[in-house]
Amino acid sequence: MDELRPDYILQVGLGFWASKALLSAVEMEVFTELAKHAEDLETLQGRLGLHPRSARDFLDTLVALKFLERRDGRYYNTPITDFFLDKRKPSYIGGMLEMANHRLYPFWSHLTTALRTGLPQNEIREGAPNPFDALYAEPARLREFLRAMTGVSHGANLAIAHKFPWSKYRTVVDVGTAQGDLITQVALANPHLEGIGFDLPQVGPIFEEYVGTNGLSRRVKFVPGSFMEQPLPKADVIMMGHILHDWNLEIKRMLVRKAYEALPQGGAYIVYESIIDDDRSANAFGLLMSLNMLIETADGFDYTGADCSGWMKEAGFRETRVEHLTGPDSMVIGIK
Amino acid sequence: MDELRPDYILQVGLGFWASKALLSAVEMEVFTELAKHAEDLETLQGRLGLHPRSARDFLDTLVALKFLERRDGRYYNTPITDFFLDKRKPSYIGGMLEMANHRLYPFWSHLTTALRTGLPQNEIREGAPNPFDALYAEPARLREFLRAMTGVSHGANLAIAHKFPWSKYRTVVDVGTAQGDLITQVALANPHLEGIGFDLPQVGPIFEEYVGTNGLSRRVKFVPGSFMEQPLPKADVIMMGHILHDWNLEIKRMLVRKAYEALPQGGAYIVYESIIDDDRSANAFGLLMSLNMLIETADGFDYTGADCSGWMKEAGFRETRVEHLTGPDSMVIGIK
Repeated sequence: MDELRPDYILQVGLGFWASKALLSAVEMEVFTELAKHAEDLETLQGRLGLHPRSARDFLDTLVALKFLERRDGRYYNTPITDFFLDKRKPSYIGGMLEMANHRLYPFWSHLTTALRTGLPQNEIREGAPNPFDALYAEPARLREFLRAMTGVSHGANLAIAHKFPWSKYRTVVDVGTAQGDLITQVALANPHLEGIGFDLPQVGPIFEEYVGTNGLSRRVKFVPGSFMEQPLPKADVIMMGHILHDWNLEIKRMLVRKAYEALPQGGAYIVYESIIDDDRSANAFGLLMSLNMLIETADGFDYTGADCSGWMKEAGFRETRVEHLTGPDSMVIGIK
Repeated sequence: MDELRPDYILQVGLGFWASKALLSAVEMEVFTELAKHAEDLETLQGRLGLHPRSARDFLDTLVALKFLERRDGRYYNTPITDFFLDKRKPSYIGGMLEMANHRLYPFWSHLTTALRTGLPQNEIREGAPNPFDALYAEPARLREFLRAMTGVSHGANLAIAHKFPWSKYRTVVDVGTAQGDLITQVALANPHLEGIGFDLPQVGPIFEEYVGTNGLSRRVKFVPGSFMEQPLPKADVIMMGHILHDWNLEIKRMLVRKAYEALPQGGAYIVYESIIDDDRSANAFGLLMSLNMLIETADGFDYTGADCSGWMKEAGFRETRVEHLTGPDSMVIGIK
């Protein structure tokens, strides 16, 4: 037998099949339907509006991909899809996948053009308005989107809440806080802390509801504002999750300086997202996220821990370190 | 820490990122360029026409996905990408991925519509001519496409050549033979056999060249014809690889009957492709291939070993068995 086999090439090259099957399942609310109760093929086919030609192959594909289970002819959610992909649960992260299905999948079909021109390939390409402006103008859609962001980042948020030496600090600000899960987890795990979530004013009610549900309204407050136009609220620790990669180098450096200015001597700055490994040869998700910034933004990009440490040192931070959180995510910590 | 994590959901849901990065790399001939010699970032960026914004992220993504290596600032193919994705090598399978990039990736964006309507979502949807008609009309493109099919199926072809008890038989026909790699591998491993490749007349010169290169012109001949319209050439063994799934149930049964009629008593019929497991819960690739038949054909579908054995029994075969080959591929064997 030959030594060389093309299996891995074909598996990745046709990997969009499995990806799109899951995205269509989220779009058709397969998991929301099955969260009510298990159903057989005929019932599910009718409920979901699947054509008889495709229903069985589609549902069995989801079984083979481990997103559903089938026992005695009835389909069930797995514990994971029931928790994360049932639209009626607060833990739903399907908003992220709905966005990937409607927007990113077709935009990525223009990846080659993006690679050749360096230009974004999303709505901006056609001169349409930035879809995030519309999102922020509609409270119901914004709430769902921010909730999806929470689900996606929750594991890393928990890791930050437990790994960072919070006992040394008393106050914390989360910049671009969204629904507020990061500061919520940090405050829940560290009852001595007082915190502020800082974001655009539209985010306020969604943040306050989430923090209230978690019983933290006394210790965790919302401060409206724009990190682009204002100084950051002052605190012992400044956190920025999934913020820096959206922007160009100049704005990245400006945001790092703003964090430095908001901290006391000895204060800590935590930057986190899918930080690329320094050798740029291992964290494929972080590198792909940077290509997604190519598709989605004019000049955003992801970066390594060493890159971020360099910007921190330039801004005056005396000490930096990188710590892995979970999956592709790491945090870069700068001490003033 | 919570027990439930969304990592696998996000990995598959955003799996089209890695898929499209590889497909764009094939489109831009990254591997063909690097097969000449290793190159540094600046040179490669210029040669490939990559924009400075995207070049490094793109190439390092390919490194992190294990399609390239980077040593001392120079990019190299891996042994596998050098063998399968260099356009100038006969082992190139990029034709398959070029097709996936230009056609299947955008067509699969309509998967939800296909699931709801049961209708194909390829060129047929827009009333455009079937692209395979155009392919068969252009010898150079057809040669490249059939070569890609060889690369994709070569591992399974070798497995059939070695696993099947060929010593019991003297003659073999490969139906829908394409470039002829299956019958070539079977004949190379079994010097006592004489074989026929049966396919549309346009395939003849491509088949004969391939068989000639392998030194088999004396033992392996081409017979032009259509398995839809004519009886199959007679032989001790009839093989059909990646044929049955293109067609509806009625035509599948007709082809199984034609195989039966072409065989002597005791003769064997070998059907092979990504046969779905009988429980339809394990071979995700086989099930996704069936969804690809939904996208690409009016009524084709993939099937289990039990389905195929059933059609064989109906046609009169007295004994059937299923044997795994390699990756997602299995063969179903019927004995007359």
